[in-house]
Amino acid sequence: MLYSKLLGRTTKTVSSEEESINAQFLIRGGFINKQMAGVYNYLPLGLKVLTKIQNIVREEMLAVGANEILMPALTQEESYKTTGRDAMDVLFHTEGPGGSKYVLNPTHEEIVTPLVQKYVFSYHDLPLGTFQIQNKYRNEPRAKSGILRGREFNMKDLYSFHTDEESLNEYYEMIKEAYFKIYSRLGLGDLTVLTYASGGAFSRYSHEFQTLCTVGEDTVYLCEKCKVGINKEIIAEQTTCPQCGNVDLVEKNGIEVGNIFKLRTRFSDAFNFKYLDDQGKEQKVEMGCYGIGPSRIMGTLVEVFHDQKGIIWPESVAPFKYHLLVLGKEDEVFAKANEVYTAMKKNGAEVLFDDRRNISAGEKFADADLLGLPIRLVISKKSIEKQSVEVKKRNSDQSELEPIENYL
Amino acid sequence: MLYSKLLGRTTKTVSSEEESINAQFLIRGGFINKQMAGVYNYLPLGLKVLTKIQNIVREEMLAVGANEILMPALTQEESYKTTGRDAMDVLFHTEGPGGSKYVLNPTHEEIVTPLVQKYVFSYHDLPLGTFQIQNKYRNEPRAKSGILRGREFNMKDLYSFHTDEESLNEYYEMIKEAYFKIYSRLGLGDLTVLTYASGGAFSRYSHEFQTLCTVGEDTVYLCEKCKVGINKEIIAEQTTCPQCGNVDLVEKNGIEVGNIFKLRTRFSDAFNFKYLDDQGKEQKVEMGCYGIGPSRIMGTLVEVFHDQKGIIWPESVAPFKYHLLVLGKEDEVFAKANEVYTAMKKNGAEVLFDDRRNISAGEKFADADLLGLPIRLVISKKSIEKQSVEVKKRNSDQSELEPIENYL
Repeated sequence: MLYSKLLGRTTKTVSSEEESINAQFLIRGGFINKQMAGVYNYLPLGLKVLTKIQNIVREEMLAVGANEILMPALTQEESYKTTGRDAMDVLFHTEGPGGSKYVLNPTHEEIVTPLVQKYVFSYHDLPLGTFQIQNKYRNEPRAKSGILRGREFNMKDLYSFHTDEESLNEYYEMIKEAYFKIYSRLGLGDLTVLTYASGGAFSRYSHEFQTLCTVGEDTVYLCEKCKVGINKEIIAEQTTCPQCGNVDLVEKNGIEVGNIFKLRTRFSDAFNFKYLDDQGKEQKVEMGCYGIGPSRIMGTLVEVFHDQKGIIWPESVAPFKYHLLVLGKEDEVFAKANEVYTAMKKNGAEVLFDDRRNISAGEKFADADLLGLPIRLVISKKSIEKQSVEVKKRNSDQSELEPIENYL
Repeated sequence: MLYSKLLGRTTKTVSSEEESINAQFLIRGGFINKQMAGVYNYLPLGLKVLTKIQNIVREEMLAVGANEILMPALTQEESYKTTGRDAMDVLFHTEGPGGSKYVLNPTHEEIVTPLVQKYVFSYHDLPLGTFQIQNKYRNEPRAKSGILRGREFNMKDLYSFHTDEESLNEYYEMIKEAYFKIYSRLGLGDLTVLTYASGGAFSRYSHEFQTLCTVGEDTVYLCEKCKVGINKEIIAEQTTCPQCGNVDLVEKNGIEVGNIFKLRTRFSDAFNFKYLDDQGKEQKVEMGCYGIGPSRIMGTLVEVFHDQKGIIWPESVAPFKYHLLVLGKEDEVFAKANEVYTAMKKNGAEVLFDDRRNISAGEKFADADLLGLPIRLVISKKSIEKQSVEVKKRNSDQSELEPIENYL
């Protein structure tokens, strides 16, 4: 991609309303732009990152055999009356023709439960997992954390359906592992810990995945031996590590990057969703739900991986792997850079070519640091004289010369 | 994919509310499920079709150099006051914290214009095209056409920005061609005609792409020589073929599967979006917009490609290319079918394997016809004796035996 053809420029400053690091760098870099508090536009660079995160999440959900579906944002309010959740304060309400009452879904239990009920009749049809990746809506009173907490945000939600608690428990453990694979592929594996949190009325615990980070809104008590946390909300009841009994817990801040929850029969009861067991008897369906927010993950990555100059994207989600810069104004230098760019693209490399002519070397370097692509390649008169390219990783201070033929 | 693991079963009947062919077949086949009038869930088979359509549209938009972005559904009502469109009757309204007024976007001129304005300053930055593929919302008084006309529906909208009318005209012609490529890849090329429609206050005409189909809601007067139509809405002013002057026009029904529109300065004026020309003087930005609805395309394909038994998907958008059926109950027949399934998957073929054991041959054939995958493969005791597979195309009555080794 040619930088000159990309919609979204770097800017030096950002509105003082933006308190969060993620919003500041993402807006300054031209990844996103604010529509209003808690609602953002994704420019081409930002959409590439978001799509890569979604694809990693999708691949791991398909790998455990879950079915991908797509549910609507708009739904009849009635569905929330059925579960008694119509008074939730985060619901956005709207009206359809003839004053019919709709809401914008903040989550999809009210949609997925009766949907799956239409296709599941007997124990032969279970267990079943189904997920979707789509935008959700929450009427947040405060939306000051950039894309960490939005009024419109992107979510992957997986729902699972089971004959009994044992099947639910097995599935739950399988998804726990799938989640760790996801965080590992996103570059967050080492920083992310399983955290025990409140389970509500139907289960003892739910689990969150907390990425440890000083700006995290959540407080977690960490067992450093087990790499397991306890959310502050349950620390009064659970004062020791649930895995090893360790009492020596360390207070940390975390960003919740995922949560998994045994819903048990909370929603199947509401919709009277039952199945026939092998004796032909009706039984209650057990359910679990498992969330990860790709847009929140994107914000978290920026909070965790940046320095004063800008973002440092993990390679798995970087919008491009290479940032090709050309220094100087000579036509032959531009021609050589263009040759390298064309060859790299032909070889299938993901490369952003800063082809701007009237921009100083200093500005180009500053923009490259701000955008945070993993590998910076510089072509200049000097490097061409040595038949080489200057190569520098974004997360390193050292650059080195490599033969230009490696890139041709 | 194993049919037994797929969420979404075939059903023999469908609610009598569903008047349209597309909704009937898509619901009966387990592609979609109705949430409420004009709002549908996409089950795995349906989501696969939708995604393939989106990808064809996306590829052709990227091929003309357009930037993909993602804009929100939720937007401040104020943006529509700026353009005087806040009284549009299709707007869904909702309220945010403190009674702030939001709408759900039915289209995105009010969002994209000020967004692009932030990054475009001079003639160097133009022309520029940017598109998104996302769900849009229209408070339709009537929603009886399945996924042809929804209250929540999927749209690709491309917007282009130009220094002058000449540049807009050139771009417009380029997109016209890109649209024909899209319809051709979707299997709709032969049935889809460019149709002249009202241009509004700023242009003489806009253009629609109408797929000729007896159930189409639109009336088109077709010049059979030029394969060009005139929408009934302008036939009083435009009584002859605009291309050859032919007066012998034939009345047809059509489904509008795309429309392109020269917005000129309608929205750039409202947002005072100007650029600096090569003399450093401020000039008005010219705009165009270009829509295609992937969900409507999906519905159109069903309206156009079906018979009494079910859907006949074009290969480019079929959820799977092959439908593998196994007849009989013998374990060795199932084992052979499973071997073929595994080999085909390994070779990268898209194959749906109907692995159900307690279903009759007749029901399996009926389901295959309903689902409409391009190629049906049948493995039975008989076919195995002849070391062959029975192969039948969905759009043909003839089946033939092929050596089973071709599929191993």
